Amino acid sequence: MPSSLIRGKYLISPTGTGDTTVLSDVAIYQKDGVITEVGPWQDLRSRHQPDEELGGPDFAIIPGLVNSHHHGRGVTTLQMGTCDDCLELWILDGWGRRPYDHYLMTLYTALIMLESGTTTVMYNHPQTATATLKEDVDAVLRGFLDAGMRVAFSSYFRNQNRVVYAADQEFLSGLPADLAEGINRHLAATDMTDDEYFAFFEETYRQYNGQASGQGSDQLSDKVRVLLSPSNVQWNTDEFLQRTRETALRYNTPIHMHLVESNYQKAFGMRTWGKTPVEHLQDLEFLGPGLSCAHAVWLTERDIDLLAGAGATVCHNASSNLRLKNGIAPVNPMLARGLNVAMGTDSTAINDDDDLLQEMRLVSKLHRQPGIGAPAITSGQVLAMATANAASPTGFTGEIGVLEAGRRADMLLVRLSDLEDPYLDADLPPLEVVLGRARAHDVASVIVNGEVLTRDGVHQRVNKDEVRRELREQLSRPLEQQTMETRSMAARLRPYAESFYRSWADDSGGPPTGIPHYVYNSRT
Amino acid sequence: MPSSLIRGKYLISPTGTGDTTVLSDVAIYQKDGVITEVGPWQDLRSRHQPDEELGGPDFAIIPGLVNSHHHGRGVTTLQMGTCDDCLELWILDGWGRRPYDHYLMTLYTALIMLESGTTTVMYNHPQTATATLKEDVDAVLRGFLDAGMRVAFSSYFRNQNRVVYAADQEFLSGLPADLAEGINRHLAATDMTDDEYFAFFEETYRQYNGQASGQGSDQLSDKVRVLLSPSNVQWNTDEFLQRTRETALRYNTPIHMHLVESNYQKAFGMRTWGKTPVEHLQDLEFLGPGLSCAHAVWLTERDIDLLAGAGATVCHNASSNLRLKNGIAPVNPMLARGLNVAMGTDSTAINDDDDLLQEMRLVSKLHRQPGIGAPAITSGQVLAMATANAASPTGFTGEIGVLEAGRRADMLLVRLSDLEDPYLDADLPPLEVVLGRARAHDVASVIVNGEVLTRDGVHQRVNKDEVRRELREQLSRPLEQQTMETRSMAARLRPYAESFYRSWADDSGGPPTGIPHYVYNSRT
Repeated sequence: MPSSLIRGKYLISPTGTGDTTVLSDVAIYQKDGVITEVGPWQDLRSRHQPDEELGGPDFAIIPGLVNSHHHGRGVTTLQMGTCDDCLELWILDGWGRRPYDHYLMTLYTALIMLESGTTTVMYNHPQTATATLKEDVDAVLRGFLDAGMRVAFSSYFRNQNRVVYAADQEFLSGLPADLAEGINRHLAATDMTDDEYFAFFEETYRQYNGQASGQGSDQLSDKVRVLLSPSNVQWNTDEFLQRTRETALRYNTPIHMHLVESNYQKAFGMRTWGKTPVEHLQDLEFLGPGLSCAHAVWLTERDIDLLAGAGATVCHNASSNLRLKNGIAPVNPMLARGLNVAMGTDSTAINDDDDLLQEMRLVSKLHRQPGIGAPAITSGQVLAMATANAASPTGFTGEIGVLEAGRRADMLLVRLSDLEDPYLDADLPPLEVVLGRARAHDVASVIVNGEVLTRDGVHQRVNKDEVRRELREQLSRPLEQQTMETRSMAARLRPYAESFYRSWADDSGGPPTGIPHYVYNSRT
Repeated sequence: MPSSLIRGKYLISPTGTGDTTVLSDVAIYQKDGVITEVGPWQDLRSRHQPDEELGGPDFAIIPGLVNSHHHGRGVTTLQMGTCDDCLELWILDGWGRRPYDHYLMTLYTALIMLESGTTTVMYNHPQTATATLKEDVDAVLRGFLDAGMRVAFSSYFRNQNRVVYAADQEFLSGLPADLAEGINRHLAATDMTDDEYFAFFEETYRQYNGQASGQGSDQLSDKVRVLLSPSNVQWNTDEFLQRTRETALRYNTPIHMHLVESNYQKAFGMRTWGKTPVEHLQDLEFLGPGLSCAHAVWLTERDIDLLAGAGATVCHNASSNLRLKNGIAPVNPMLARGLNVAMGTDSTAINDDDDLLQEMRLVSKLHRQPGIGAPAITSGQVLAMATANAASPTGFTGEIGVLEAGRRADMLLVRLSDLEDPYLDADLPPLEVVLGRARAHDVASVIVNGEVLTRDGVHQRVNKDEVRRELREQLSRPLEQQTMETRSMAARLRPYAESFYRSWADDSGGPPTGIPHYVYNSRT
């Protein structure tokens, strides 16, 4: 694997300890995919004979971005016909999406993410049909590896309450018999015992954890970590959660899950245990530094303290939380209490394109509480959320997310000329320029493990037009009969699900009315 | 002026009465800048011999977008060195921005806005130095007219409380004498009596209201409306507001102003009159259908009722409200009560580029209250906010914003191929596709008054590279001594202003704590 010297007008990186480093006229020397030195460009240039020189005085170097919550779907759920809706109904609408080729779709997804600077993804595989799960997962991982991305892989699992947040058969008993029967058939396709899930995890772990994908010698280029993933507290039995924790300890692998994404999920906890889901997980001794929780919109102050105290991570998905009517996660109080907060797009970013740079910008605007002295997220915090903080729960902890000697050479070259044109005040901090103005087309090059995956925005490994052409062709086939039947079934189910959740309005499941973390307007 | 037939796979337009029209395989016939017919493409094609045919089956036609609150600044405040901050401090920081050429800046601003589909702008001129105000305004209007945009022009005016929300001399008396003296000199540059302001309005109105700018015969192409603009209730005396209202009635011209942009502005009302600013304006009989209020973040339920009852307009600036720490305007309750809500960027859009398409997307995500049955803004409402609703307060009421016979031919051709690639579910409504996925580079052509201003994204009237080159050159000159001195002065002033507002925290001016319109998370 060749060595390279990457030069920047600026290097902007979190330190990994809460601060931000900004260096000027700087270079990174990397060899075999590992950063060996960061320092003044003149100095490094005089001491090294790299195989290649990259960058220059028109670029800012920032760490490769880490999308900490993702489900694939480069052809988005919207393109597939599912309009944004309240999470619980949106999930049911999604039952009727057409099937697709997991390899092609993942490859396409990875190319799109790379274009806007994501080099590592925490990919959470939806519970696809049990009969094809192994081949689906093989296809997904081949897709990411062929694209050259780093991936923290997990396959999520639900073993209860798969229609609404109540026992399946109890809920289905209130439906017309033929509808219930159709839904049971639909659910049966993803039936899996706990034993089968853990066996599947172990097989995937053995096969892929540490899997390489790089040019030349691959021994330093392992790009896969395999994680465990209960889907969420309302979707998993306590027994499953406890076994997950034991397995995670045995394999020393992280756990990724969804948590209090919607207010209904919080209400489920109050109704079931008289406690919040976080308090329940605390009772199960489930919380710990290996745990990352996606969304976590409806955390109470005590929940935040519990997660922070346990050293867990929250993966914030700002766009998704808005699109699926879940609210705004209380990121400022999380940060204030030292909770590790990462950032992801959940495959439903604001522009429907998994652009993590745009998501960083949304996050930087969304968490600015009114009033002088009121908390406002800083640009340094936002950068860390998309890099160092997000690296922590991936299993690549300490290996990526910070530009310093010893870490993997994952980074972006952001072209500055357009950002500074026709003028830029000399006193404006470089991070404010990049975070305030950079867009995907400003990402000139993406480097993973020292390998240049895009040059001037052009993919070097894969022909994207070809991938798109194949996808276009495959998806031009007529919808299958079964897809159309599932669509009809989901449409019939919808009003029952809706009235199920509406019936919660009388107690803790109604539209939220508590004292919010953020007061963004006022009725009085 | 030539006639043209503009063809679309879809035409998507608000009806102007609260609904959305979506037509397929459609065409618009325009002559002399006015839409004469909208109908099936085959039919119109057989009956007309246009000078030019535009569009085709790969385009959606939507109305030209109307940015209903704007201050110019194509080279943004961020590029000029002012980082986002709490509104009240950000304004003071802005004192130290370097001066610029108003013509070039406006031309550049207009070109950027046109690229993302804005055809009409409600431009609110900042109170530039009295000595140069006339020439500044001439330059600004020449810039918009040369670019081909439509402009609802107003020049705002402040005649009190120009440093903080208190009498200038009273506040300055608490500052070191030399600082107070410097500030007094700074303020003196924009001194203007009420008489002078109204004389200036009348002169501008006579010179520009109805001013044309088009190809060929211009008589049908008047593109300027001149409005009145008190800056805001805390910045204007009641006498000035009353005289504004009388003048507006005499000239039959609208009034554009800022209102309860921050919680401090609401607090100013409570401290000064024991009433909200809207209630105070109601007492002054100032509210009416000609009034549009930018921001209006801190409206109470009663305020919303008062504005709706008066037939006024709120101009929502979602990005700006977040960036300047003002919160989220309660748009859903406004819409529910029939208040006319428009949309603008306030020259501080999320991506720092005045992209109203992106702003529409932000608005469509931001107002989705949690829970099944809780209000969520619809895509049709968002489209109307950026078109028909925004047209209403511009003075071009009834002439733009809706694609129907009799209106001006202002429209966009949005290329669909990228939005639908590699797949799009056939059942997805076209508006969801455009609003969910279209970006500036999908805006293929922008048409104002029948004139094609951009073709395949390329400006037809003006060479943008040339404009940028000139701006680059002018702004490369060193900062003037006076700018640097004003910067130092503003930096010295800052802590005094900060402690002024912090002293309000004891009563109604602290960080907001009331019952919010939107509950997006919960502490308990």
